[in-house]
Amino acid sequence: MYDCIIIGTGAAGISAALTLKARGKNFLLMGSKGLSPKISAAEKINNYPGLPAVDGEQLKAALLRSLESAGIEITPAQVTGVYDMGGHFGVLCGQDSYEAKTIILATGVEAVKPVPGELEFLGRGVSYCATCDGLLYKGKKIVVVCTSKDMEEEAEYLASLASEMYYAPLYKGAALSGENVHIIGGMPQAIEGGMRVERVVFKDRTVECDGVFMLKSALAPSALVPGLKAEGGHVLVDRQCRTNLSGLFAAGDCTGRPYQYAKAAGEGNVAAHSVCDYLADKK
Amino acid sequence: MYDCIIIGTGAAGISAALTLKARGKNFLLMGSKGLSPKISAAEKINNYPGLPAVDGEQLKAALLRSLESAGIEITPAQVTGVYDMGGHFGVLCGQDSYEAKTIILATGVEAVKPVPGELEFLGRGVSYCATCDGLLYKGKKIVVVCTSKDMEEEAEYLASLASEMYYAPLYKGAALSGENVHIIGGMPQAIEGGMRVERVVFKDRTVECDGVFMLKSALAPSALVPGLKAEGGHVLVDRQCRTNLSGLFAAGDCTGRPYQYAKAAGEGNVAAHSVCDYLADKK
Repeated sequence: MYDCIIIGTGAAGISAALTLKARGKNFLLMGSKGLSPKISAAEKINNYPGLPAVDGEQLKAALLRSLESAGIEITPAQVTGVYDMGGHFGVLCGQDSYEAKTIILATGVEAVKPVPGELEFLGRGVSYCATCDGLLYKGKKIVVVCTSKDMEEEAEYLASLASEMYYAPLYKGAALSGENVHIIGGMPQAIEGGMRVERVVFKDRTVECDGVFMLKSALAPSALVPGLKAEGGHVLVDRQCRTNLSGLFAAGDCTGRPYQYAKAAGEGNVAAHSVCDYLADKK
Repeated sequence: MYDCIIIGTGAAGISAALTLKARGKNFLLMGSKGLSPKISAAEKINNYPGLPAVDGEQLKAALLRSLESAGIEITPAQVTGVYDMGGHFGVLCGQDSYEAKTIILATGVEAVKPVPGELEFLGRGVSYCATCDGLLYKGKKIVVVCTSKDMEEEAEYLASLASEMYYAPLYKGAALSGENVHIIGGMPQAIEGGMRVERVVFKDRTVECDGVFMLKSALAPSALVPGLKAEGGHVLVDRQCRTNLSGLFAAGDCTGRPYQYAKAAGEGNVAAHSVCDYLADKK
C-alpha cells in the first residue's frame, strides 16, 4: 500500500512528488514520461519565477532534471479510474491496479469538452482506454477520437483489433493508415444510442458503430473518480487542496484557472503537505 | 496612480510582478533589493520544481535573473502602512506615499511573534520604522529590537539620534557600538505603559524608555493594513487570494502554511491574475 499515488506529470504532479520525496513518503507518480503535450507546445513562458524566459521544452527539461535529481521515476500508466474504498483508494490502470492511502489528482484540463452523450455512455460503449477495453471490440466497428499525436499508438492498437475503424484525429499530421481505417475530420457533435452506443454524429455524416474510444491526454475528473465534486469541469478544492473525498487531493489546472505553471507547482506543493498532514492524523 | 503595488520581494511578490508585467500592467514592486533575509539562509531547497537542489543564494540569484529578464526593478522602500481610500489604496513608506488601484500583500511571515503590548502601543511609542519616526526620539531614551542583520543600519541611525539606546539584536554577530548604546540580550517579554510606552520588560531587567522600535523584515499584516482580516497571524484569503478588502490581495507565507517557495510563487501568480480580473471589472 503506497502512502500516495500522484496522478499526472505536469508541474503540479511533479511539484507534489518533489515534496513527498523530501518528506520521505512512499509514493508513485503516474503519467506520461513525456510530461504533458501542452508543455512542449508552449512558446515562451515569462512568468515562472526562477526560470527566466524559457520555452516549453526548456521548462520540461528543467522539471525532468528536478525529478532526476530527487531520484523520482515516472510510472508510465494511464489511470482509468480511482475508487474510494473507505480509508484507502484503488487506482485502476487498464488491467493493473494499485492501492494507496491518499491520492493527488493532478490531471490537468483537457481543452476538449466532453461531447454530448460521452459521459452518459461511459462504460456502455464509450471508453477512454485502448489497453483496457480494446479487446471488447475485436472484429467490431468503432469510432476513435484522438486529441493528441502522443496517443496515436493506442489508436494503432485499436485498428489492429477492429473490423472497421473511423478515426477522428483532433491534431495535425495524423499518420495512421490501414485498409480498415477511415479518417474523418472534426470533432463529433454527439454520441447517441439506446442502452449502448449506436452511432456517432459528425458534422457531415453519422457513423453507426459498436463503440467509441475517446483518447485524451487528460480525463474529466468526474469521469475518473466517482463521487468527486466538480464544477464547470474543475475539481472543487479548498485552500489546502482538499476535495470532498477525505484523503483525495487535487492540484493544478484541474482545480481551475489560472492555468499557469507557477500556480500548478504551488498547488502541488500544498497538496503534498496536506497529504503529510492527513497521514500524520491517521496514525 | 499605479494599477497595483506589490509589497514584498520574496517568491510571491516576484511571481506576481512577472505576471503583471506579462499582462502589461503599471505597477511597483516594493521591498528589499536583497529579497528576504530568509532566502539567503536556506541551505538546500529540493522541492522547487525546475531548479533542482539549489541553495538559498542560487534560488535568490535565479529569481533576480527573472526580474532582470522581464525588466522589472525593485523599489527599495519599507512600507509602513496601507490605507483603503475607498476605490483605491494609499501606501505609506515613511515620508513618501504612493497610490494604487490594487495591492498585493506579499510580506512573508515574521518568525517573531508580536510581543505582548506591541500592537496595543503601536503609534503610541511603538514604531516599526526608523526613517519615519526616528526624529521623534531625538535626545530621548529608546529600546530597539532588531530581528535581522540587514536592518542594523536603521538601528545605527537611531543610535545617532537617541540619548540612550538599549539594543536587543535577535541575530548573531551584532556590530553596533557607541557610548550611548547598551546591548541587551534576548527578546522583550512585554511592552508596558499608560497612555504611551513607559518601559520594556526583559527577562533579567526592565528598561524605562520613551519609545520602542521593533525593526523587523516583515510586519504583521494586521499592523500594516487597518481593517484587514487575519487569523493566527495570517491574512485570510480565498482561493483567488482575495482578502476581506476589495482590491487588496495577499500571497505567499503571509497567507499561511506551508511556508514554501513553490506555494508562494503559485499564490503570487494567482493574486496577479485576480488583480487583472478586478481591474477589468472596474472598467
